[in-house]
Amino acid sequence: MIAIAEGGSRARPRRPRGVVHLVGAGPGDPGLLTLRAARLIRRADVLVHDALVGEDILALAAPAAERIDVGKRAGRRGVPQHAINRLLIEAAGRARTVVRLKGGDPFVFGRGGEEALALAAAGVRFRVVPGITAAAGAAASAGIPLTHRSLAHAVTLVTGHEEEGGRRVDWEAIAGAGGTIAIYMGLGRLEEIARRLRAAGLAADTPCAVVAHATLPEQRTVTAPLSGIARAAAAAGAAAPALILVGDVVAVGERIRAHGPVPRKRRVHRAARAALAP
Amino acid sequence: MIAIAEGGSRARPRRPRGVVHLVGAGPGDPGLLTLRAARLIRRADVLVHDALVGEDILALAAPAAERIDVGKRAGRRGVPQHAINRLLIEAAGRARTVVRLKGGDPFVFGRGGEEALALAAAGVRFRVVPGITAAAGAAASAGIPLTHRSLAHAVTLVTGHEEEGGRRVDWEAIAGAGGTIAIYMGLGRLEEIARRLRAAGLAADTPCAVVAHATLPEQRTVTAPLSGIARAAAAAGAAAPALILVGDVVAVGERIRAHGPVPRKRRVHRAARAALAP
Repeated sequence: MIAIAEGGSRARPRRPRGVVHLVGAGPGDPGLLTLRAARLIRRADVLVHDALVGEDILALAAPAAERIDVGKRAGRRGVPQHAINRLLIEAAGRARTVVRLKGGDPFVFGRGGEEALALAAAGVRFRVVPGITAAAGAAASAGIPLTHRSLAHAVTLVTGHEEEGGRRVDWEAIAGAGGTIAIYMGLGRLEEIARRLRAAGLAADTPCAVVAHATLPEQRTVTAPLSGIARAAAAAGAAAPALILVGDVVAVGERIRAHGPVPRKRRVHRAARAALAP
Repeated sequence: MIAIAEGGSRARPRRPRGVVHLVGAGPGDPGLLTLRAARLIRRADVLVHDALVGEDILALAAPAAERIDVGKRAGRRGVPQHAINRLLIEAAGRARTVVRLKGGDPFVFGRGGEEALALAAAGVRFRVVPGITAAAGAAASAGIPLTHRSLAHAVTLVTGHEEEGGRRVDWEAIAGAGGTIAIYMGLGRLEEIARRLRAAGLAADTPCAVVAHATLPEQRTVTAPLSGIARAAAAAGAAAPALILVGDVVAVGERIRAHGPVPRKRRVHRAARAALAP
């Protein structure tokens, strides 16, 4: 047993003077940044970010901040992970506040663990600032609860991009877990995933939703039964990034949305930025 | 198939003029509020909150705001859900901005779905603002990734408080899903949960952590193998609210923390509040 009491500070000689903050930028809407994330972005000397972090969030950084884009984009590969790790360690040697900004949460399919391990091994001080993960953002924006009493007492977040994990995703076991399934990065393989979930015992009429560009003005939600969700998403032109929700909660969302949630307003985006003005 | 395009606004006559915002307050640290949540709390005419929302977050509300505590506390029951629903509907009839503030995320074990359904059925306009859920907060603060390449390509969030769900939690199926397990509200039943997870095939030495009071200055993390985690948590005096993490990622966290993440600073809390000053 190891009991760890956090808090308390010790001088650590010979460490790089900079601190690397692994910061979740949330699902896209700048209003869903945390207060701490917004402050760190404003204070950053070096900002290392992914492609999914939008310009309105990056614009919070000081004009003098060094911005480094390490994101993957269609047609070109991103910077390899080991090179990002090296870049962060190197930046901590020359800058006081290094912000590594990732879409969503750094510890949910964000490779934050790999970066934290590399920083720790190099003796670089770091902190982790959680962000609103895509499943929570999509659920709130689309009006679909992730859990719901008597319907779903669990939600499994899983990557549809199996190359991301060395182990193969066990869709059969996940289908058996009996809760809501939230699939990240799965749109391109949705037909195969839906087939495997059905083979694992999920009913053809299990309610499903694809929430594309969740929390952004261009958000679109497509709902259909499991047997038709891949076709429906394609027909609607749903494009990545998209979050896929599978389970009875999607039907609860339909009941909620039958009355129509209040449309989100651009005003709030602007206000979020105003709140950050120096 | 139903394709829903969000955005666009319609006049809705005869509705109460107020809007109810179902807002996630995050795991406790005020710096982990979202920008939108902080703004809404400041603007709220009526603030309906749970026991888990701390005084430093509630203090963001305007002095004139009406504060209603509907939380459960040791020794007394909270306000029943149907009464909370009624209270929100009634508040929307007399106030412009009603904020229903919940610890964590309103759609992850927060009963936000039930409140959204009740509001929608009553014709009350509402929005949902996601919050940092306890699993993400605890993971970031304790330095334990929820997913990790080659180790965990999924994370299941599940309630240990089975009375919360009409359906029984299928621990066997959840153990089989092969990813990280994050258990909410499970500390009081940890011994039984650990026994069921072992019976379901998880090894006795599966790494586990209990993160109590995650993200707050009094945070404590206790780690132990599955076979000893209940005893270790009791010996360390870990108290609710606590988040339990089960899986190989906990060992990654040990490797990360061997070097010690930077202690969180109270300064940041104060700064977060300062950033919100009118």
